[in-house]
Amino acid sequence: MRAHVDRHELADPGDASGLAAAIAAGTVDARDIVAVIGKTHGNGLVNDYTRAHLTLVLSGAIARATGETRETVAARVPFIFSGGCEGVLSPHYVVLSVDRTAPPGVPGRPALAIGTALSTAMAVADIGREAQVAATAAAVREAMAAARIERPQDVHFVQVKGPARTGEAIAASAAAGRPAVAGDANRLMAWGRVACAFGVARALGEATADETAEAAMFRDYAVRSDVASISAGVEVDCNEVVVIGMSAAWSGPLAIAHRPMADALDIGAVYAVLRDVGLDASPQVAPAERDRLRAVFVKCEPQRDGRVRGRRHTMLDDGDINAQRHIRGAVGALVAGVLGETAIFVSGGAEHQGPDGGGLVAVIAERADGLTPP
Amino acid sequence: MRAHVDRHELADPGDASGLAAAIAAGTVDARDIVAVIGKTHGNGLVNDYTRAHLTLVLSGAIARATGETRETVAARVPFIFSGGCEGVLSPHYVVLSVDRTAPPGVPGRPALAIGTALSTAMAVADIGREAQVAATAAAVREAMAAARIERPQDVHFVQVKGPARTGEAIAASAAAGRPAVAGDANRLMAWGRVACAFGVARALGEATADETAEAAMFRDYAVRSDVASISAGVEVDCNEVVVIGMSAAWSGPLAIAHRPMADALDIGAVYAVLRDVGLDASPQVAPAERDRLRAVFVKCEPQRDGRVRGRRHTMLDDGDINAQRHIRGAVGALVAGVLGETAIFVSGGAEHQGPDGGGLVAVIAERADGLTPP
Amino acid sequence: MRAHVDRHELADPGDASGLAAAIAAGTVDARDIVAVIGKTHGNGLVNDYTRAHLTLVLSGAIARATGETRETVAARVPFIFSGGCEGVLSPHYVVLSVDRTAPPGVPGRPALAIGTALSTAMAVADIGREAQVAATAAAVREAMAAARIERPQDVHFVQVKGPARTGEAIAASAAAGRPAVAGDANRLMAWGRVACAFGVARALGEATADETAEAAMFRDYAVRSDVASISAGVEVDCNEVVVIGMSAAWSGPLAIAHRPMADALDIGAVYAVLRDVGLDASPQVAPAERDRLRAVFVKCEPQRDGRVRGRRHTMLDDGDINAQRHIRGAVGALVAGVLGETAIFVSGGAEHQGPDGGGLVAVIAERADGLTPP
Amino acid sequence: MRAHVDRHELADPGDASGLAAAIAAGTVDARDIVAVIGKTHGNGLVNDYTRAHLTLVLSGAIARATGETRETVAARVPFIFSGGCEGVLSPHYVVLSVDRTAPPGVPGRPALAIGTALSTAMAVADIGREAQVAATAAAVREAMAAARIERPQDVHFVQVKGPARTGEAIAASAAAGRPAVAGDANRLMAWGRVACAFGVARALGEATADETAEAAMFRDYAVRSDVASISAGVEVDCNEVVVIGMSAAWSGPLAIAHRPMADALDIGAVYAVLRDVGLDASPQVAPAERDRLRAVFVKCEPQRDGRVRGRRHTMLDDGDINAQRHIRGAVGALVAGVLGETAIFVSGGAEHQGPDGGGLVAVIAERADGLTPP
Repeated sequence: MRAHVDRHELADPGDASGLAAAIAAGTVDARDIVAVIGKTHGNGLVNDYTRAHLTLVLSGAIARATGETRETVAARVPFIFSGGCEGVLSPHYVVLSVDRTAPPGVPGRPALAIGTALSTAMAVADIGREAQVAATAAAVREAMAAARIERPQDVHFVQVKGPARTGEAIAASAAAGRPAVAGDANRLMAWGRVACAFGVARALGEATADETAEAAMFRDYAVRSDVASISAGVEVDCNEVVVIGMSAAWSGPLAIAHRPMADALDIGAVYAVLRDVGLDASPQVAPAERDRLRAVFVKCEPQRDGRVRGRRHTMLDDGDINAQRHIRGAVGALVAGVLGETAIFVSGGAEHQGPDGGGLVAVIAERADGLTPP
Repeated sequence: MRAHVDRHELADPGDASGLAAAIAAGTVDARDIVAVIGKTHGNGLVNDYTRAHLTLVLSGAIARATGETRETVAARVPFIFSGGCEGVLSPHYVVLSVDRTAPPGVPGRPALAIGTALSTAMAVADIGREAQVAATAAAVREAMAAARIERPQDVHFVQVKGPARTGEAIAASAAAGRPAVAGDANRLMAWGRVACAFGVARALGEATADETAEAAMFRDYAVRSDVASISAGVEVDCNEVVVIGMSAAWSGPLAIAHRPMADALDIGAVYAVLRDVGLDASPQVAPAERDRLRAVFVKCEPQRDGRVRGRRHTMLDDGDINAQRHIRGAVGALVAGVLGETAIFVSGGAEHQGPDGGGLVAVIAERADGLTPP
Repeated sequence: MRAHVDRHELADPGDASGLAAAIAAGTVDARDIVAVIGKTHGNGLVNDYTRAHLTLVLSGAIARATGETRETVAARVPFIFSGGCEGVLSPHYVVLSVDRTAPPGVPGRPALAIGTALSTAMAVADIGREAQVAATAAAVREAMAAARIERPQDVHFVQVKGPARTGEAIAASAAAGRPAVAGDANRLMAWGRVACAFGVARALGEATADETAEAAMFRDYAVRSDVASISAGVEVDCNEVVVIGMSAAWSGPLAIAHRPMADALDIGAVYAVLRDVGLDASPQVAPAERDRLRAVFVKCEPQRDGRVRGRRHTMLDDGDINAQRHIRGAVGALVAGVLGETAIFVSGGAEHQGPDGGGLVAVIAERADGLTPP
Repeated sequence: MRAHVDRHELADPGDASGLAAAIAAGTVDARDIVAVIGKTHGNGLVNDYTRAHLTLVLSGAIARATGETRETVAARVPFIFSGGCEGVLSPHYVVLSVDRTAPPGVPGRPALAIGTALSTAMAVADIGREAQVAATAAAVREAMAAARIERPQDVHFVQVKGPARTGEAIAASAAAGRPAVAGDANRLMAWGRVACAFGVARALGEATADETAEAAMFRDYAVRSDVASISAGVEVDCNEVVVIGMSAAWSGPLAIAHRPMADALDIGAVYAVLRDVGLDASPQVAPAERDRLRAVFVKCEPQRDGRVRGRRHTMLDDGDINAQRHIRGAVGALVAGVLGETAIFVSGGAEHQGPDGGGLVAVIAERADGLTPP
């Protein structure tokens, strides 16, 4: 098996032209597509409809190519979009596909491996609770098996999109006697992210089942996953899971690495992850090397104590700009500055994902020698 | 003469406690204060009243110490605040003071030099026009003389705050037969910044008087100043000018350097300016060295063609978050990541200040040997 | 001919369920649909993609019913959505359809009449200029003819959606030597609205061709149309025109009336237009009568001198919330309070549409006797 | 005793010119001032510093007139400002003063009566808890006594401003082992408002001590006060209480009335309260009568079920504009439309203040005959 990662620019949230052209040109085989991850134009909060819009047009483009219905495509392919291109960030999406006819990998030379799974549907009252933790953990294990990754340490990135719900849906569930864990749409989104992060940590052995109990949520930030990136959107009902790592069952020139970010200024983590995939940045990846970067995933979070390196920040008290928008723009720009590249997936809401107040950075890159990595 | 630069944290825009404590402790002599530059909690746009609030309390604190009236203090000391602590940026202010009793500098060993000047008052209809260019140029020359800096190349940073006006004032001026160059408050603010930048460029010989004519404004971006940082606020009537550079007439351990930033990702400029002042960052200034950073000034601007390094950005089309807030948060975080420090003055609206789509970074630091720089 | 007006709630911008159900139930014949006008969830500014999203799904629903392609539907049916449900406003859309097999009207008893037309495509450089004025005027005349409305005074509402363009497109046009009339996306949107309003005024004889010259734009606010409602969106290339009025060539129980609003507090205009269509409000339309309201269209504008009834307002200086969002929420609530109904189309940007600082309100209602109006 | 109510326009949050001029002209005796209530330019959320700014300059103006220190003035006079002039609302403040030398009232002819009180200081952990309920109730009783109002039904408006705290302060209290009832600054603000509302209801007998227990907060919305208007600001430490009603111990031509608003469209309540104070509006207060309006106080709230009159609203899911800003702009405009007046105090966050999803409107007006009301 061989994984392909194709990145496309996005003129607007209804722009499927990049993928459509790639399919038409034969660069991408629509039947091989297993997941799409991207950054859209909206605000990344509850009332961000750009994610659903892009899902609609991309699933339509795939359906037209494969002859499936759009519903069938949406049921087998996770479309995971983080809204909010704050600062220098550029709207784009990466299409992950798997060529199952490719020759097997060379023993001892693992290559990029991808597996996906979709959990059962979550009711409003399940979000942010044990039901979601367990469902996510099961889906992560299923996706690992699909990716033929055996060891947790070979998993470098787990993207999950769980369901968000509007205030209206939350009120309806409460009226029906099944109150959500939080009555406010934005807060419920946060609870859901934590439940998914706990599910990833549990599946990968980063924390025990006991440690990932509901009582630890928003309390014990030592319970965390260093490879989980969770988002939430009103457009999904279940937890969509994409596991990316390294496996000797796969071939091809691509590799992935990740590093936790200790805080929002942890520029060292960015340099480290580039070294891990064999890219030099002194102080920035050279233009000629930039094309070897295939996908960059960042997770971040405003530090809860209102400080960064001891200095006061104002993100948490801002009534005009949501704190997640602030931090995405900031950490995104720091990473972009090292990479010389702004097509980066940056997602906020990193509670229990990476160190508290920090997050994680993962990079998929082509090896310098263009060969299957040793 | 010897320049002092003291930085204070800001809990809220009415917090003068840092300066008051420094005056009480004798660290700062209130009579020596020549300028205050800082970053406040507001949005940095027309309806940002935090700048005026802080001016009120700091001028009051100085007045109480010197026995002057607050009006006298405000008339002799430029208070220049940029609103908007986007992302990781931290609210703070630096107090610039001059000890005129200090021994003269050593020939051949220039040290940090500061000079200030206030231009005549600007009418609404003067803003963004030749009258403001000429007034600013004259004030820059006056401030250079006050700083005893003879050569333009020894000027490393010129901060100007010119007047902004509300829509109401603009309408009143138009009704009185003196229409402003722009009818909209935010746009007039931009015109005023350009006129001030042209004034700095003209005074320092970065551009000729012909090149800095009104016709070149927002047209010929090759006409620019690489040391100008212009802001505007409704709380001032004239152009307040602070010139900072190096002069052998001054003594002390402080030095300043600057670099233009080619674009929003020019991380190399940040590393370069640190080298210029003798600070190492590999990849970040070490905690032990961080205290040698006394003040950091950054100017930046969303790239006008809607691209950064060829990739689409969305700042200019965003109706929810002003483009200046986006770019301040982004470039501020990139600089903060290299410095390990978030108390940075970052100001947007860099039209004709540094390269188009980029800006500038200037750093005041203590020399490693603690001695007057050679 | 007989006009039908069906209103549907909108759960999110991808929700076509209301129209789909009505088509399935036979309430609406998809082939009869001539226009859709609605209010969506976005911000109503340049980066509002909810309008395009809803256009996509509704044109798809119609295409599925008629067997046309979605492109054919979009080419014959104007979809005109104003983003921004500020305050109490409720997302919804009204479907206008024409039953051409209905018996002719009774002489002397005019009924609701609808006509539509699409102008030629506008280049970026055409927007806000004479080319757009002329193209809009021609399209208005064509739509009047289609509606068989002969006298301008029988036209009560002309909705036009013209093209908006992103900063990127504006920069590209300038680079190609065809600069737009404004370099900023939001300002170009405003210029386009004015050109369309001038086109309506010219077509209806509200102003002469001379009076509607480019030189009068944003200058002479006495040049205006009291029935024009102009919006703009990045999703269209031409000027889409819907003319609604009264004509004896039509039958049915529906009627339309309109009133200019002198300013944002002109509650008297709302009571007056209700009287015009035979609805009582003392002080609010009674719940039992509310269903007779079929569509309400409001256009409004922040008063340019920064005052309302002599008191200062702050809309024009607000860097956090766009002035159009402020005024839509305010005037929308005032109208909703009189009507007891929040499904109102409220569109800002009323330059030269109704009195300066005011706007217009138009109401389509079922006559009390349920008969074709006399 | 006689109460005076003077309204002043506010050019910016540092503008004390109106009060200063009134003091200089002898219209207001600075020693008689007992409270100031107003609407400032900020966003009305945690990071709104315009309230503190205006408090600073107005307390300074009073101090200069009376010879007190500013601290003394601030300790005896509640300054209660609601930030956020959304839509048509106009920044302004009303100065309430009491002439204790005026002749006593006529038996049977009650007139406007004002009393104030300040509670003890609240710790972060007290906010939103029983400690705040009890402290507020005690302060309300004290203010009623000061106003010589004996019967609760003669109280028509109770304004309380309690303390808000920043995320930083909340985190510090938690770290010190005294966690706040909510970890988020905006939510803690809401808890504090509810505790104060419960305190008012308890003091006035609108609800029993049992009913106003912590367990009923955000749960049982039948527990409410129909005269309470609560705001919160980071600039105060205690609960500042102003009670306004009618008492035969007072003389003068002013009267106050109030009505609960059933929901955001309850225009009938506005007409009713105008009738209560003898003002006609058909459909708007006539310009000649407008000056008899001395102060208008409105409290409102986005309906929690996401609906208004059964129609969906979008306020609670909006990540760009805070729901309180939406509802203030909407209800403020509805009231302004009936009054023909935009200098209205409109405050959001009406949890347990008036009917759920609604709020209250109170009006102070001069009686038509200019005499002490019978």
